Amino acid sequence: MHILITGAAGMIGRKLTARLTADGVLAGREISTLSLADIAAPPAVAGFPGRATSLEVDLSQPGAAARAIAGRPEVVLHLAAVVSGEAEADFDKGYRVNLDGTRALFEAIRAAGDGYRPRVVFTSSMAAYGAPFPDVIGDEFVTTPLTSYGTQKVIAELMLADYSRRGIMDGVALRLPNICIRPGAPNKAASGFFSSILREPLAGREAVLPVGEDVRSWHASPRAAVDFLVHAAAIDLAPLGWRRALMMPGLSATVGEQIAALRRAAGDAAVKLIRRVPDPAIMSMVAGWPGRFDPRRALALGFRAESTFDEIIRAHVEDELAAG
Amino acid sequence: MHILITGAAGMIGRKLTARLTADGVLAGREISTLSLADIAAPPAVAGFPGRATSLEVDLSQPGAAARAIAGRPEVVLHLAAVVSGEAEADFDKGYRVNLDGTRALFEAIRAAGDGYRPRVVFTSSMAAYGAPFPDVIGDEFVTTPLTSYGTQKVIAELMLADYSRRGIMDGVALRLPNICIRPGAPNKAASGFFSSILREPLAGREAVLPVGEDVRSWHASPRAAVDFLVHAAAIDLAPLGWRRALMMPGLSATVGEQIAALRRAAGDAAVKLIRRVPDPAIMSMVAGWPGRFDPRRALALGFRAESTFDEIIRAHVEDELAAG
Repeated sequence: MHILITGAAGMIGRKLTARLTADGVLAGREISTLSLADIAAPPAVAGFPGRATSLEVDLSQPGAAARAIAGRPEVVLHLAAVVSGEAEADFDKGYRVNLDGTRALFEAIRAAGDGYRPRVVFTSSMAAYGAPFPDVIGDEFVTTPLTSYGTQKVIAELMLADYSRRGIMDGVALRLPNICIRPGAPNKAASGFFSSILREPLAGREAVLPVGEDVRSWHASPRAAVDFLVHAAAIDLAPLGWRRALMMPGLSATVGEQIAALRRAAGDAAVKLIRRVPDPAIMSMVAGWPGRFDPRRALALGFRAESTFDEIIRAHVEDELAAG
Repeated sequence: MHILITGAAGMIGRKLTARLTADGVLAGREISTLSLADIAAPPAVAGFPGRATSLEVDLSQPGAAARAIAGRPEVVLHLAAVVSGEAEADFDKGYRVNLDGTRALFEAIRAAGDGYRPRVVFTSSMAAYGAPFPDVIGDEFVTTPLTSYGTQKVIAELMLADYSRRGIMDGVALRLPNICIRPGAPNKAASGFFSSILREPLAGREAVLPVGEDVRSWHASPRAAVDFLVHAAAIDLAPLGWRRALMMPGLSATVGEQIAALRRAAGDAAVKLIRRVPDPAIMSMVAGWPGRFDPRRALALGFRAESTFDEIIRAHVEDELAAG
């Protein structure tokens, strides 16, 4: 089996590459070729016994998507995207990469013309939704994004469903929860504090909390996100009909509940490293974010996430800190 | 006030032009200029005292959208589209006109760069929705179209909301019901029978009914559709927040209820002109169409449609048959 990952150099892309390398198989078939694409060529895969190729590709450029699928990968894991903050700051770049780049990929698949019909797994986001929300958001709730990023994700979901219905590909879009605990240095994403208030104290460093403890979000670990992608690449999608966008399972938790889990894992000393610095701009942004879903369709298809923040912290400690 | 209508040569476009010409004002302001655009230049407006221009324009062609808005119309009524059947039959044309053409229009507005921020009223469709449905579809029900046309309409809705949120324009998308009674000759649209089973017998001609009497749809007259557009051009949209797509009011009726209204209006002789010729292909398509909405947001903003099929038939007789 030949698998293509776009956005392979990103955080999830790297973990996904490592997971597929370790597994060696997908849906019971040996992975013979792994094509890793990103805006800058991803580093070579360590320890992959098959054929691994690395592609420097901007899908929004003419001919780039055709090159990316030239080897006719049976599975395309399309992760490449401009992130939320950048898509809001740079209107043109967000639409160019997130909409035009994705459309170019789908069009290249359509243009293949040799019966090529790959499984396409697309990472969407809970940014597909926009307030006001009911207490619990069901699978039939309207998608009215409040960011350009969310808008571009929903547009890509719609194209994916239509291209699938027309028999061009067999696609599924996964709306990812907030990914927590994100490894690496604190970034400027407005949602960054959800991760940093755990990650930094766990490493003995200070973190800043810009919102109140009652703020609620919907979380899954990077490990769970990789599980979602691998599962989506392997399962039969026919039960979905043509509703090909799925909100992923996650854990609804308040910041206060996150902090309580940190206390259980690392004690009061760790919790004391959280500095409370209210930021009205961030507080008003998070008020428009969803906090609780009832993702029955994804659960019925076998997608699973953590059910406690203790598990999420344990995954982080095992995957990121155990080596250190 | 300067008003631009795209798709002005279409059925709704012509009725809208006639209505604005008769009114002479919109939102209390005199209509000084009426720009009519379509793929072939629309005919000159009869009886309009102001400045009327006619534009031959394919918005998806380079520079075309910039020409269309060169006069900086304060109101843009964007009706131009490839219809459902054609968008399904010609994949490229549907995406080019319905997605790229609409995006080009929005981008031309963004590129104006002189503080230009028009009211944009976009005609979407209940094809935004796809089965399975609840008995009554509320304003928060998910949009999962089952046609390329519906997909393109929802994508345009999403861009309209994002461009509005970003301050580029002040847009609203109206999801039109089935427009009934459509004047003119029977066409090949799968939904055509909803109109032809009334229009043809009212004119003493035979009509073909390809589905059962229990088939339900959501209807509004061409007159109501024009009312929706004029109302949307004039009202304050702030109460909508950034959820800028509105399902329009209509009348939920079965084919049997339509026929009963025909009998009341024109007697048994008219009803006898309906030939029942079941068509399994059309029957399976209509099974995926919505039949009943609860369009509270639109009603709260003052949008109104007919409440009985007798009214719909009366509107048709007055608007189409009275002169004859």
